[in-house]
Amino acid sequence: MAQNLARREELADAGLRVLAAQGARGLTHRAVDREARVPQGTTSNYFGSRDALLGALGSRIFERLAPAPEVLGSVGRLPPTLEQATAYLQDIVARTTRHPELTLALFELRLEAVRRPALAEILRATLERNYTLDTEFHLQAGLPGGAQEVALLHYAVDGLLLDLLTVSVNGRHDPPGMVRELANRILGASRSRPPA
Amino acid sequence: MAQNLARREELADAGLRVLAAQGARGLTHRAVDREARVPQGTTSNYFGSRDALLGALGSRIFERLAPAPEVLGSVGRLPPTLEQATAYLQDIVARTTRHPELTLALFELRLEAVRRPALAEILRATLERNYTLDTEFHLQAGLPGGAQEVALLHYAVDGLLLDLLTVSVNGRHDPPGMVRELANRILGASRSRPPA
Repeated sequence: MAQNLARREELADAGLRVLAAQGARGLTHRAVDREARVPQGTTSNYFGSRDALLGALGSRIFERLAPAPEVLGSVGRLPPTLEQATAYLQDIVARTTRHPELTLALFELRLEAVRRPALAEILRATLERNYTLDTEFHLQAGLPGGAQEVALLHYAVDGLLLDLLTVSVNGRHDPPGMVRELANRILGASRSRPPA
Repeated sequence: MAQNLARREELADAGLRVLAAQGARGLTHRAVDREARVPQGTTSNYFGSRDALLGALGSRIFERLAPAPEVLGSVGRLPPTLEQATAYLQDIVARTTRHPELTLALFELRLEAVRRPALAEILRATLERNYTLDTEFHLQAGLPGGAQEVALLHYAVDGLLLDLLTVSVNGRHDPPGMVRELANRILGASRSRPPA
């Protein structure tokens, strides 16, 4: 069972490399077999349909983008100020832009899901679970702002990442500075609360 | 010459329908010929390469998403308040979500450009021109905020549109309300200035 899980992760990682290099158009079960150097048919055995394969890439992206335990721990230990929330968001953007292929793959999957209802269902579950965990973390840490602010930050950071990782609308980038401005404006009017 | 221009627009519109229905993977010169019901080879005559074709779709999107002249006119006539900026942004989001295929196509093109440097160059020129016009319009109308605020709004609205038009992270949507919150927070601390 543990071996199966390791193999699934290995195949999903190979799928993410194919998606980054070739886009959704190049992602086939066979292309993943080749990329992972496994016998033809292996990826089909693990992911029985194109939607199952694409959906598994979605969950794998969030596993790989999860913050390091020490980052999560430090947010819990330090005072839940605006500065702390800003540093946490800056860490998310720094981590994400160090592995551009993961967030680019997630954008590809979200677009592909518009045309594939079965993928949309799998991906919606993944995105909503991640968003719920994010919101709970924010509230439990007592960081400024509530569910509404977390939603606004999600939109703003997604749009900033789209600009950083694809063709930019203005080419003027200072990611930590932009994140600070967004956090100041979106969370700045809210008070910190005692951690839950 | 005018006929050529009309034919280019007609082919670009057919290309946008193909892109929306099938994604970048389905967009070929032949598929556009078929969609536009023109003789095979016509699209290749107008757009000599895949990058030229994709790049032309990018400019066409902005032509089709341009605000109605009466909207632009009313922004110039009314006082340049936060309410006015909010209504203008709400109109952008309402117009965009009424034609989801256009903004979805633009997201597809931005992702495709990551893998195609020649497309990235064409698309960058289109995006930067549009962004410059937006910023000039905002400043000339004397709306609250400056170039930095326009950039932050661009990111936030792009992320909101990604959420509205693809799989949502939380499925809770009230687009005019979300736009109002974003405008309040991003522009709210800035004063209106006399129109230039």
